[in-house]
Amino acid sequence: MSFVDIIRKKRNGKELTQEEISCLIQDYTNQKIPDYQMSAFLVAVYFQGMSANETVWLTEAIMCSGEVIDLSSIPGKKIDKHSTGGVGDKVSIVLAPLVASLGIKVPMIAGRGLGHTGGTIDKLESIPGFRTNLSTAEFKENVADIGVCIASQSEAITPAESRLYALRDVTGTVESIPLIVSSIMAKKLVAGIDGLVLDVKTGSGAFMKEYDKAHSLAKAMIEIGKGMGKPTIALITDMNQPLGKMVGNATEIAECIDTLKGKGPPDLIELTILLGAYMLILADIYSDLEAGKKALRKMLQNGKAYEKFKAIVSKQGGDTASLETFKETAISKKSCEVLCDTDGYVHSIDTFKIGIASNILGAGRKKLGDKIDYSVGIEVLAKIGAKVTKDQPLARLFYANETSCTQAKGLIKEAYKVSAQKASIPVLIQHVMK
Amino acid sequence: MSFVDIIRKKRNGKELTQEEISCLIQDYTNQKIPDYQMSAFLVAVYFQGMSANETVWLTEAIMCSGEVIDLSSIPGKKIDKHSTGGVGDKVSIVLAPLVASLGIKVPMIAGRGLGHTGGTIDKLESIPGFRTNLSTAEFKENVADIGVCIASQSEAITPAESRLYALRDVTGTVESIPLIVSSIMAKKLVAGIDGLVLDVKTGSGAFMKEYDKAHSLAKAMIEIGKGMGKPTIALITDMNQPLGKMVGNATEIAECIDTLKGKGPPDLIELTILLGAYMLILADIYSDLEAGKKALRKMLQNGKAYEKFKAIVSKQGGDTASLETFKETAISKKSCEVLCDTDGYVHSIDTFKIGIASNILGAGRKKLGDKIDYSVGIEVLAKIGAKVTKDQPLARLFYANETSCTQAKGLIKEAYKVSAQKASIPVLIQHVMK
Repeated sequence: MSFVDIIRKKRNGKELTQEEISCLIQDYTNQKIPDYQMSAFLVAVYFQGMSANETVWLTEAIMCSGEVIDLSSIPGKKIDKHSTGGVGDKVSIVLAPLVASLGIKVPMIAGRGLGHTGGTIDKLESIPGFRTNLSTAEFKENVADIGVCIASQSEAITPAESRLYALRDVTGTVESIPLIVSSIMAKKLVAGIDGLVLDVKTGSGAFMKEYDKAHSLAKAMIEIGKGMGKPTIALITDMNQPLGKMVGNATEIAECIDTLKGKGPPDLIELTILLGAYMLILADIYSDLEAGKKALRKMLQNGKAYEKFKAIVSKQGGDTASLETFKETAISKKSCEVLCDTDGYVHSIDTFKIGIASNILGAGRKKLGDKIDYSVGIEVLAKIGAKVTKDQPLARLFYANETSCTQAKGLIKEAYKVSAQKASIPVLIQHVMK
Repeated sequence: MSFVDIIRKKRNGKELTQEEISCLIQDYTNQKIPDYQMSAFLVAVYFQGMSANETVWLTEAIMCSGEVIDLSSIPGKKIDKHSTGGVGDKVSIVLAPLVASLGIKVPMIAGRGLGHTGGTIDKLESIPGFRTNLSTAEFKENVADIGVCIASQSEAITPAESRLYALRDVTGTVESIPLIVSSIMAKKLVAGIDGLVLDVKTGSGAFMKEYDKAHSLAKAMIEIGKGMGKPTIALITDMNQPLGKMVGNATEIAECIDTLKGKGPPDLIELTILLGAYMLILADIYSDLEAGKKALRKMLQNGKAYEKFKAIVSKQGGDTASLETFKETAISKKSCEVLCDTDGYVHSIDTFKIGIASNILGAGRKKLGDKIDYSVGIEVLAKIGAKVTKDQPLARLFYANETSCTQAKGLIKEAYKVSAQKASIPVLIQHVMK
C-alpha cells in the first residue's frame, strides 16, 4: 500500500493496520515520506480520529523510532508521573525524590517550558551546575545508583515525536487527541517504566480548558498504557489557579525546597502526596492509598525526601550548597507588587495570563530555543476564595527590567477578578481514573 | 493572520476572506508557503468544504497566479467548452472548428490524457507537425486571425494550479469539489473567455461515476462562472459507454474528420451539436436552441466546419494533406477483434476498463510524462442495447505489440456484459443546468 493510499484510508475513516502505522512512522523517520504527505495524514487524523488500537500502534511506532531505554537489569518497579502542564506545576521536582525515598525507581524524562507553561528541566537548570542533558548510560546508572534521575529528552530518543510535533505546530494539528496522547505516552514509555501516573490538568491555565476534553485525553492515555501492558492511573486536577504560590524557575525551586523540608503550600502537598500514593500502588509497595499517603508525609517530615533531592542534585552536577541559601541568592532582588483595587473576594484567576506574565518577565519561552532568565518569576499572594482588601498585594513580581515588569503587572491585574460575593474554592482533585 | 491560523480557521469550518485566500495562493506561488502547510490546508478543505464565495475567490486567485490572457482587443464573444473527461470524448476537436465556422471566437486551452481518459492535446498531436505548445502571443493571434485556437497549458499560465494539482495527487485530496472546480474554472477563465459550456460526465467511464456528484460539480462550476461574471451552462451527459466508436488518438482524429465531413456517429453528433447550440446562445448569435442546432448541422454538411478544422491544423503547423489519408496512414496496421461469447444484447460496458485497455495498448498515460503511441486504439463495434450473436466482433483493437493486445483484449471482454434480456440504451443528455 502506497503512502497516499494510507492517507486516503484514514481520510475515509477506515482503521489502519499495525503494519501500516509502523511503516508510516518508520518511513517518516527515515525521511522516505515527505512532510507534505505526513501533514496531510495528520489533518486526516485530526478529522477522523483513531481507534484505541490505532493509537496504541502509533504510540509504539513513535516509541520505537529511536533508542529505547532498557531498565530491566535494575531491580524493582520503575514508575513515572506525567503532567499535561500548567502554571506553577512543580510537582515532579518534589514527587520524584519523595517517592524515590521510599524505594521506588523513578526514571523521569521531562520537558522544557513552552507558551504559557514552565518546564521541569528549565526549573532544575536554575540550580547552579545542574545537568539534564544526560546520555542513556548515565541516566540508567543514576537510576541504578540512587533510584531516580530527571533528564531532558535526547535527540536519540523518539526522533519521530520531535519531527511530528514540529509539523503539527505549523499545520494546526496540535489539538488532536490521538496525536497528543501518542506523543506523550511514547516519550514516557520509552524510558523503560512499568507504570505511569498521569496528572491531567483542566481549567484556565491548562491546555485542555474544558473538563470533558481533559477526561477524553485521560481516557485515551489510560487505554494506551493498558494496550502496552503498562498500568496507568490518571488524576484530573484543577488548573484554574497556579499550583502553590510560586511561578517561574528559581522561584519554583525555592518552593520545592521548602516543600521537601515539610513547609510547602497545602495544595502542592496534597496533590504531590496523592500522585505519590498512586505511584506506590502501581509499584506494589502499598496497596492501601491512605497508608501510602502517610508514608509519604513522613518522608517530607523526616527529611528523607529532601536528602534524596540533594542526592539527585549532586549526582547531576548541581551545587548542593547553593540549595541552603537558594531563596536569597537565585531569585532576582528587584521586586514589586500588584495591589488589589477593591475590597472583596478573589473570584477567579485567569491562569493562562499568569503564565504569560511570567513569560513576559523572562521566565518562559514563546518558541523553542528562546533564552530564559531563571531569576525572575511571580509569587501568588492571594488565591481563589481569599478575602482581600483594597491595596492588599495580590502578587509579587521578581523582575529583571522595568518594561517587562510594567507589562506583566498589567496582565496580572487583568487576570484577577475580585467580587463582593464570597467565592468558592475550586476542588483540586476532580477525578481519579484507572 | 499567519498561515497556520488560516489552516485552523478552515479546519474549524469558518469562512475565509477573499484577502486570506488571495494571500494564500500568492504566497504559495511565490514559495513562501511550504508544501507541508498547503497540504494541511487542502485536507482541511477536503473535510470542511468551501462556501460559494470562497470557491470563487480561490478560482480567481489561482487564475491570477500567472499570466492572464487578455482577448478584449479581439471583437466578438469568446466562448469555450470544457468536459470533465471520458472515454472516446473527442467533442472539442469537432466542436471548436464547428462553432468557429459560425463566427464564434473559441480560445481553447486543453489538457493531456491521464489515467483512463484521453486528452484533446494528445489526440491533436497525432496529426503530423501539429503544435500545441504556443506562446500567449501566438494563441491570441490565431484567435484573431481564424477565430479559434487549441493550445496546451503553458507554464506561465495558472502556475498555482499545476503545483496544487501535483500536491493533491499525492495527498489524497483530488476528490474535493471546491478544489476540482476551482482548478478547472481557473484554467478555463484565464483564457479570456466571455462564457463557458460545461460537459459534466457521469457513469462508469467518468470521474464522477454517480449522477449526484456530477450534479454537485456542475452546480459549483456554474456558481463560479456566475460569481466571476462569465455565464456558464452545464450539460450532464452519459459516460456509461465510449462516445462515438473510436478510442485512442489517431483513431479519434479519424473519427473527428469523418464527423466534420458530416459522416460521424449519431451520439457524437448529437452531443456536439447541442453543446455548440448552447455556445451560440452564450455568444448571443442565436437565442433559439433549435435554430442554432440547425445552423450547426448545416456547417457539418456544407464542409465549412471541416474547412475551419483544416485552417486550425494549418495555422498550428500541422500537415493538412495528411488528413485526407489519415485513417489509412496514422492508425496501426495491426488489428485484432474481441469476439462475443454468446447471443444476446449488450447490457453494459464498464467504460473505465475500456479506457484502461486503450492505455495498455499505449494510447494513454499512467503518469504525466509517459510516452504515447498515437497509432494504437480501440474501435467499439457494439454499443449498449445492440443485439449481438456469438463470435460477432464487439471491438477492434489497433495495437503495436502482441502482449499489450492480449492484455487489452482480456480487459475489454471483462468490460462487456451481454445478457439474454433486451437492454435499454442510456440517455445521452441527462440534464441541462444554467
